[in-house]
Amino acid sequence: MGIRIGILGYGNLGRGIECAIKQNPDMELAAVFTRRNPETVSILTEGAAVCSVADAEQWKDKIDVMILCGGSATDLPEQTPEYVRMFNVIDSFDTHARIPEHFANVDAAAKESGKVGIISVGWDPGMFSLNRLYANAILPDGKDYTFWGKGVSQGHSDAIRRVAGVKDAKQYTIPVESSLEAVRNGENPDLTTRQKHTRECFVVLEEGADAAKVEEEIKTMPNYFSDYDTTVHFISEEELKRDHSGIPHGGFVIRSGKTGWNGENSHVIEYSLKLDSNPEFTSSVLLAYARAAYRLAAEGQCGCRTVFDIAPAYLSAKSGEELRKMML
Amino acid sequence: MGIRIGILGYGNLGRGIECAIKQNPDMELAAVFTRRNPETVSILTEGAAVCSVADAEQWKDKIDVMILCGGSATDLPEQTPEYVRMFNVIDSFDTHARIPEHFANVDAAAKESGKVGIISVGWDPGMFSLNRLYANAILPDGKDYTFWGKGVSQGHSDAIRRVAGVKDAKQYTIPVESSLEAVRNGENPDLTTRQKHTRECFVVLEEGADAAKVEEEIKTMPNYFSDYDTTVHFISEEELKRDHSGIPHGGFVIRSGKTGWNGENSHVIEYSLKLDSNPEFTSSVLLAYARAAYRLAAEGQCGCRTVFDIAPAYLSAKSGEELRKMML
Repeated sequence: MGIRIGILGYGNLGRGIECAIKQNPDMELAAVFTRRNPETVSILTEGAAVCSVADAEQWKDKIDVMILCGGSATDLPEQTPEYVRMFNVIDSFDTHARIPEHFANVDAAAKESGKVGIISVGWDPGMFSLNRLYANAILPDGKDYTFWGKGVSQGHSDAIRRVAGVKDAKQYTIPVESSLEAVRNGENPDLTTRQKHTRECFVVLEEGADAAKVEEEIKTMPNYFSDYDTTVHFISEEELKRDHSGIPHGGFVIRSGKTGWNGENSHVIEYSLKLDSNPEFTSSVLLAYARAAYRLAAEGQCGCRTVFDIAPAYLSAKSGEELRKMML
Repeated sequence: MGIRIGILGYGNLGRGIECAIKQNPDMELAAVFTRRNPETVSILTEGAAVCSVADAEQWKDKIDVMILCGGSATDLPEQTPEYVRMFNVIDSFDTHARIPEHFANVDAAAKESGKVGIISVGWDPGMFSLNRLYANAILPDGKDYTFWGKGVSQGHSDAIRRVAGVKDAKQYTIPVESSLEAVRNGENPDLTTRQKHTRECFVVLEEGADAAKVEEEIKTMPNYFSDYDTTVHFISEEELKRDHSGIPHGGFVIRSGKTGWNGENSHVIEYSLKLDSNPEFTSSVLLAYARAAYRLAAEGQCGCRTVFDIAPAYLSAKSGEELRKMML
């Protein structure tokens, strides 16, 4: 029997986890929990249950790790402390500023229940954070850069959709190539918001909407667009569906730093991701950390953890011996 | 008082560690141990001792972590098990095929003495290994690629120097750009040795040596050059000193893999290093793991570890709280 996984929330992330379980022979999907009527939710995995979130407690002894697929704004701050009272849990909480508070809440609940909760798992926070930490520990005298994209920003796409006259929209965040190159060359540039990323918008107008007015409203929108060089393309609904229905993303974490008695040598450490599907990649990271949670719990550990606290070997299905032989 | 570091062996690596200690305020250099006459070895750090390796045992209680800077061929297989009987130790053992045996020897000795030994630390093995592991755990259905360079290969430079008629030489290993691009594009190519790297040699001839014969001998040398496209440049001793006295290196670890119910989405994870000084960067990694060894020992742990077994947070001078706030 494999590690029994529960999925709470069956959207893009939940479906991604279901697909990832199929690729990991030591895992099995036990049940999907939904706030919808379970009879209306059909999943891909034969033999796995679909249940109401209200029945989760009945699964306490039948699930090894529950992966929480809710949103960071309102779901996870409630759900993670709640579910860690019953299960080992993983979440992808990504509101950077509220991580300390979320950590404290999950840690308190997990220590009471004796379970493990790993929070803020994914790629940023997650793999990008790990790479910032490793690079900072190795090169204390240096400078960090994070670039995102090319990829779809859900928040920015939503912001455009709220503009009057817009029927639908998709927004891509794109790193500025010349700035990336300057960083890679170890030039340590100070970059403004505008110098780091551009924003490209594909917009479907409502019938009769004023294109010039919509474009102006998007480009001057504070926080979202006004600090960026923004391009707006008006396209048809069919074009949007045909050319922009994917959810790609990615980015770059770069640290350049100096070593030597007088800082005479420069080094550049770069980590990058190019992802066809942001939610499926995030799901794959979540599942690897579910394996770690299972093992930590089996060792009798409890409390809240982040990717910083987990030794890499816990993520792999391979034994320490195999890893040393094949990957070291 | 900081973490008291000992350096065993004062070559490029040992000097790199001395420089790295200067960048880490929680560390201090206690002593350098040398097989030479200590009076002939002058170091950069005021107040640190220079001692004979024969006197190391007297420092048992005055050094928290001893960093072993010997070579993998003959030094470390002896030294690491020997010194872990007295000290927490770090080494950069890089003979991949012999890692399992080395691990077993160090583990047995460390468990007897109650010390921690972290082996095979650096960038390959080391940071590259970590990135192979993380990427494999996240994308189980995928393919790994490691490219080295552009950088100086000491082994290949030495091989050229053994050719009759060669006075001095430097060899650069260079990744083939078109292969790198194919991997980055997710094409999953099967690459031969020749398709992955080229070799560029800068050779100073002895007076009266036959250049054509030397070039032929280099290019056809089995294991070292015969499977590669090799370029040989003959230059003067002055040019070699002026243009090729650095020890740059680096490389790329890339994994491309698929997710989705039918593998419909592709992802590329890439980690790369561009290093002005191979030994100084390696030293910086060793020192970060010395911090980890100190902390593991303080927790009462003992035995052999590799980078796979160490939670990232142990490498950083920052607290868990600071790390979550600043880097997650």
